[in-house]
Amino acid sequence: MNIDEQKLFLERAEEDRPVLIQKVYYPKGEVVAQASPADFQGWRLDPAIETVPYDSRRWNTDGVFILDFGEHIVGHFQFSILAEGVVDAPVRLRLIFGEVPSEVCEPLEPYHGSLSRAWLQDETFNVLPPETRSISRRMAFRYVKLEIIAPSKSFHVRFADISCLATTSARWDRLIAYRGPDEFKAMDGICVRTLANCEQEVFEDGPKRDRRLWLSDVRLQAMADEVTFKNDSLVRRCLYLLAAFAPEDELMPSDAYIYPKPGTGACTVLDISLLFAPTLLDYAKRTGDWQTARELWPTAKRQIDLVGSRHVDARGLFVDPGNYWVFVDWREGLHKEAAVQGIMIYVLGSLSELAVHLGTQNEIVGLAELRKKMVAGAIQHLKDPQTGLFVSGPDRQLSWASHVWLILGGVVTVQEGRDLLLRLRERNDVILPACLYLFHYVVEAMLKCDMQQEALDLLRKYWGGMVKAGASTFWEVYDPENHHLSPYNDHHLNSYCHALSCTPSYFIRKYFSAPTAGNDRGSKE
Amino acid sequence: MNIDEQKLFLERAEEDRPVLIQKVYYPKGEVVAQASPADFQGWRLDPAIETVPYDSRRWNTDGVFILDFGEHIVGHFQFSILAEGVVDAPVRLRLIFGEVPSEVCEPLEPYHGSLSRAWLQDETFNVLPPETRSISRRMAFRYVKLEIIAPSKSFHVRFADISCLATTSARWDRLIAYRGPDEFKAMDGICVRTLANCEQEVFEDGPKRDRRLWLSDVRLQAMADEVTFKNDSLVRRCLYLLAAFAPEDELMPSDAYIYPKPGTGACTVLDISLLFAPTLLDYAKRTGDWQTARELWPTAKRQIDLVGSRHVDARGLFVDPGNYWVFVDWREGLHKEAAVQGIMIYVLGSLSELAVHLGTQNEIVGLAELRKKMVAGAIQHLKDPQTGLFVSGPDRQLSWASHVWLILGGVVTVQEGRDLLLRLRERNDVILPACLYLFHYVVEAMLKCDMQQEALDLLRKYWGGMVKAGASTFWEVYDPENHHLSPYNDHHLNSYCHALSCTPSYFIRKYFSAPTAGNDRGSKE
Repeated sequence: MNIDEQKLFLERAEEDRPVLIQKVYYPKGEVVAQASPADFQGWRLDPAIETVPYDSRRWNTDGVFILDFGEHIVGHFQFSILAEGVVDAPVRLRLIFGEVPSEVCEPLEPYHGSLSRAWLQDETFNVLPPETRSISRRMAFRYVKLEIIAPSKSFHVRFADISCLATTSARWDRLIAYRGPDEFKAMDGICVRTLANCEQEVFEDGPKRDRRLWLSDVRLQAMADEVTFKNDSLVRRCLYLLAAFAPEDELMPSDAYIYPKPGTGACTVLDISLLFAPTLLDYAKRTGDWQTARELWPTAKRQIDLVGSRHVDARGLFVDPGNYWVFVDWREGLHKEAAVQGIMIYVLGSLSELAVHLGTQNEIVGLAELRKKMVAGAIQHLKDPQTGLFVSGPDRQLSWASHVWLILGGVVTVQEGRDLLLRLRERNDVILPACLYLFHYVVEAMLKCDMQQEALDLLRKYWGGMVKAGASTFWEVYDPENHHLSPYNDHHLNSYCHALSCTPSYFIRKYFSAPTAGNDRGSKE
Repeated sequence: MNIDEQKLFLERAEEDRPVLIQKVYYPKGEVVAQASPADFQGWRLDPAIETVPYDSRRWNTDGVFILDFGEHIVGHFQFSILAEGVVDAPVRLRLIFGEVPSEVCEPLEPYHGSLSRAWLQDETFNVLPPETRSISRRMAFRYVKLEIIAPSKSFHVRFADISCLATTSARWDRLIAYRGPDEFKAMDGICVRTLANCEQEVFEDGPKRDRRLWLSDVRLQAMADEVTFKNDSLVRRCLYLLAAFAPEDELMPSDAYIYPKPGTGACTVLDISLLFAPTLLDYAKRTGDWQTARELWPTAKRQIDLVGSRHVDARGLFVDPGNYWVFVDWREGLHKEAAVQGIMIYVLGSLSELAVHLGTQNEIVGLAELRKKMVAGAIQHLKDPQTGLFVSGPDRQLSWASHVWLILGGVVTVQEGRDLLLRLRERNDVILPACLYLFHYVVEAMLKCDMQQEALDLLRKYWGGMVKAGASTFWEVYDPENHHLSPYNDHHLNSYCHALSCTPSYFIRKYFSAPTAGNDRGSKE
């Protein structure tokens, strides 16, 4: 990459480094684990009926208790452990932090997850009371289980000042008030909490895991943030951080880190790199900051140039080169070429709109041609003449992914799109979306096609299902039929505060709410 | 207890609070565990033959390595963990600290020890490299095992600056040079290291476990310290701390704590409470500080008054009241009345000597009578007319404990004592000493009876056995026949740096060395 450009972009990102706002949270109360097949992952946490509150209780034999902070929070857990009697030995403690009940109700071992065991949030250490500790690792949790493993008969221990110094760069005092339907108020609250907890020094995908900036997630986070916290400078910061690692002759990586210094995980995901342009466009339109758009325009355009010049064939069809990670959705067996065809067309549209604002239309004459050619290619080669549905791959696979993206790309009219989506619902040979990331685009496609009721039904079914299952924040993975589904072979490893799932706020506030008053900001949080 | 007196004594103790001297130790090298039946507890740690040194090695899969600091040290372990690559996950670490190889070579679980599991020195936590950590708990160790449990494929970790900020209140720069026989130089060095590592803010019994001030241990530590570090103010501080918790109408406790504030574990051990007087006498004779002796005289005298007036019968014999812990030795089945008879007589002698110095002879007229009566009682009732050996209890038990203490008490002449000890060695119906605490007094009794060679042989056999077994510091428990012996049902729980075993320095330097030159102090440590 261009070193001068990288230096400039990292400086820009540094200028927007947010101040983290700290707030102390205290536990709302003690809870007890209750196996319950009807509840999410088979566990319920009931309020404890204890005559002695947890911070008055005295322990001198092994014991365990679970606290519920009432909300999902992200920060540094702290506590004091006091002693009465003669402290003739250290005390061994194990702390286990959970975003959802199963993490504090089930053993974490044996561990079979495909990502690092270190993501699970438990530590075992010894203290010599009285001692005040702050856990060095930032935790993301609602529940904490405290196991007192080895106290002594000679003294009692008691806990005091159990709390969490939580952080976020979201300004709760500036949160735009919710003015949508009552039915979706709870869902909106959970979205907002999810978003706030992912707004740290960057937009993290999830504050438990990966704690990483992903372009795919930032795109959705920025949408939800637009109608809630308006943390515009954080969006800008993330755009510059991502652009700083874009090579001159290759697709840009989809991820970035800031710790220990800005860098990238070099995960280049073809369909996600392409989304830099629409994310930049949305940001600039929302803020009027066309200066940033101008600086980042070459990066946005380069992604399309690279894919368009290398991976679109003479028929105007995207051809998967096979040496990229193409994501679109987690669903196994999904054929992705038609979906990427839609994404390309969609992004070419964003680029054209950017060019109009920036006066750079002369730079994209060829790309405007490319868009026409790809739209025509899609109609001619991907549309099944018999059914009128779009197909992908040699098996002529039918999927929601293909249709959603071709609709968002504007390959069909609103009426045609609506017709396609309604027909997909009638069939049982269509590859369904697997993850909430794609569900977001399904809703977006429905709204584009004036399918308000269908969009709301989808929110009710997927996000509403999580609300009913007791979510404090929205999850990375949600399958109503399989609560233990995990792309990482261990449901404890899933992130249960995952920003890509927070866009119901965007949909409800943007499409289904009363207009927002100018001074209608600030929350009791 | 008298509140004004307690306040005064605690103030005196506070005045002598030592400054802890800090020194950074670095690992001497990496070692590997080798099962070896011939070695202590079945383990040997061999120097690792690694092409890449531990602080250059890069880990990105689970791994483990053991470092040897070359010496037993007490302090705060610290390290940096660095990363190369993209730090896309935290790293989980387990650290296990060992005083002896078995602690880092064997699993610590399942745990069946009778004391708190928290005494074992292991912690498990997560770090996000690059990070520098200092372990909050003070550790006592020579070896540390670092287990890297869950690194990531995306980055390497590497350790740097592994070290320990060690503390002691012993002044190594003032250590009196060793001028004894070469044969015992190594043993002396181990004693000195043991003593230094137990000299912290008080004389601790063991820096791993109990980290507690015990009168029985202070007595022996003060002896060794007299001929090495001369940390007299620490002895004085400990005498005041112990005296501060002596009740007015009961025996004083044998232990004290300083953390979180001065207090006592209220372990009252009859034979140990009695030893306050000779410990005070030794301190005052060594330092000339008769002012302290005067302030603590009532406390010293009270212990004898209480036992003498309550638990000595008309025949002049000590009768175990049954409601006290009487220690003398760990050996099961030992009958202890004759030994305590000897201790009483010994302590009455110390008290008499103290009174001469303090001019308080008029206060102990009755006690001088008691001593005569107890000596006569011992000769008349405990000495077997047939064998001339001393017996204890209804079974007329023969033990080293009885003879040693009656000899130290001066019940027999030097020649008689020598004859008794030599005859004990010939018999196989004598209860042997079990712990190093009593072995100390065996050596002391031998030296009192001009049995220099026998005393040296005992040092060779017991302490020399530990030297051969690779001890870095001397142990709480050593049975040449059973390396796994533990009073606490788990050999990992034994203290392997235990001050009561450091008196060979006292014996060798005091009885078998060339005179020390006045300026012959300071060590390379």
